[in-house]
Amino acid sequence: MTKKVQKNKPIGVFDSGLGGLTVVFNLQKSFPEKEIIYFGDTARLPYGNKSPETIQNYARQNTRFLLSFQPEMVVVACHTASALALGKLKTEFSLPIVGVLAPAVKAALAKTRNGRIGIIGTSATVKSNSYPAEIKKANPKIKVYGLACPLFVPLVEEGLFSGPLTNMVVAHYLKSLKEKKIDTLILGCTHYPMLKAVIAGFMGPKVTLVDPSEEVMPEIAAQLKERGQKAGAVSKGGLRIYLSDITPNFRKVATSFLKKELPRLGKANVENL
Amino acid sequence: MTKKVQKNKPIGVFDSGLGGLTVVFNLQKSFPEKEIIYFGDTARLPYGNKSPETIQNYARQNTRFLLSFQPEMVVVACHTASALALGKLKTEFSLPIVGVLAPAVKAALAKTRNGRIGIIGTSATVKSNSYPAEIKKANPKIKVYGLACPLFVPLVEEGLFSGPLTNMVVAHYLKSLKEKKIDTLILGCTHYPMLKAVIAGFMGPKVTLVDPSEEVMPEIAAQLKERGQKAGAVSKGGLRIYLSDITPNFRKVATSFLKKELPRLGKANVENL
Repeated sequence: MTKKVQKNKPIGVFDSGLGGLTVVFNLQKSFPEKEIIYFGDTARLPYGNKSPETIQNYARQNTRFLLSFQPEMVVVACHTASALALGKLKTEFSLPIVGVLAPAVKAALAKTRNGRIGIIGTSATVKSNSYPAEIKKANPKIKVYGLACPLFVPLVEEGLFSGPLTNMVVAHYLKSLKEKKIDTLILGCTHYPMLKAVIAGFMGPKVTLVDPSEEVMPEIAAQLKERGQKAGAVSKGGLRIYLSDITPNFRKVATSFLKKELPRLGKANVENL
Repeated sequence: MTKKVQKNKPIGVFDSGLGGLTVVFNLQKSFPEKEIIYFGDTARLPYGNKSPETIQNYARQNTRFLLSFQPEMVVVACHTASALALGKLKTEFSLPIVGVLAPAVKAALAKTRNGRIGIIGTSATVKSNSYPAEIKKANPKIKVYGLACPLFVPLVEEGLFSGPLTNMVVAHYLKSLKEKKIDTLILGCTHYPMLKAVIAGFMGPKVTLVDPSEEVMPEIAAQLKERGQKAGAVSKGGLRIYLSDITPNFRKVATSFLKKELPRLGKANVENL
């Protein structure tokens, strides 16, 4: 059987900063033939402590920017934007838009045994109550415990993935969650998987961690399949990264998320889109 | 002698966020008759890890916004903007613009005995090399040690002004600076004075801390005097606060900086100025 070469429209991905490159890393593993356009809103990050209106406005502008590349679909890698803006984006734009929230919830529901799920994220994500609402819609009996961990992002951006200080910060936040006897914990922010080892060590072997940057892959695959495309083609897709600000330490941080050298990189002004 | 009532043009103050309210607190103590217009760029904070061009662009837009109130002068309360944009602002605008850098340097030079000065601030402030350059211009023999402490701002925004975690974060950063045997330390970021007690405790009694939000007051007084105004009038000036985003925890953080209840508050869009 010969493989049909299909029109290779890119996948657009945006995040408030560079953390969404973990999604890109997984996309490249699962769909090596797809071209990916990544937009990181480094000039306006972090989204996590901004108001819902501002986050929705930024998400809209970021999507408009990605639309200029005529993508097949847009992946909202940012949890804060997924929690607060995905519904609006879906009504305003006609192409498929996938967020990280629903797939993470699906995975957590499949994994929990005792019906006690924790969700950690930015202040805005936790305050939005989007994760508990989505979980309770599927199963109202599940107990959900949300917790904001505002020091985790700067910790990761500092490259402090482990060590005594990281242990102490993780313990500072997660102590209260451990007491709730959860058995499943959603890492509800793109940066948090970088602290996975320390978080797993603190929570203990009975708690399963859910990494949404991995769980979102089946939904992307389903969307591509629905549109007549399949994973695993031979040709290699490229990756283009655009940032709203070329920040001094983006290379260090981006490389830690992408786990390889950076591709070409552009500056994009999206404020007036 | 009777006091002349003078046309009370306001003083404009801007910062990347709410930290500049420490300057407002000191302004209100020193110049209770002056009306103050404060702009906090909460939609685009933090400035500390952004590029010089972006910081200059933001500083320009913030100044333009304040100009709409026809202020007597503009105070750049943000250290990052003072370090990276003050020179540009001074050439582009005709009114007096005062930054926090020069007064802090003057104070540090007056206070050091052993000629070894430390400066802590955001990554952008430290990388700009503005503090060492200003110090060495005045006295090339002084040894200056700059250090970025990126976790201090989120720590303060979390309200963690003291406690074991704060002690550990402060020790994590300042250990290397303590070994340099500095006797004067400039708190080169609006948030850092909130950690003064812990920093002083760690550095020990031989190290004098310089708080630029206090040191800037004489320069403001000099500017006002030059323009025929003096401090200490009887009438009470108001305070108006504008933010580019009404963030969920601004009230908590702002109150801790201003040390009193918040006045009226407006939302301002400065992106297209």
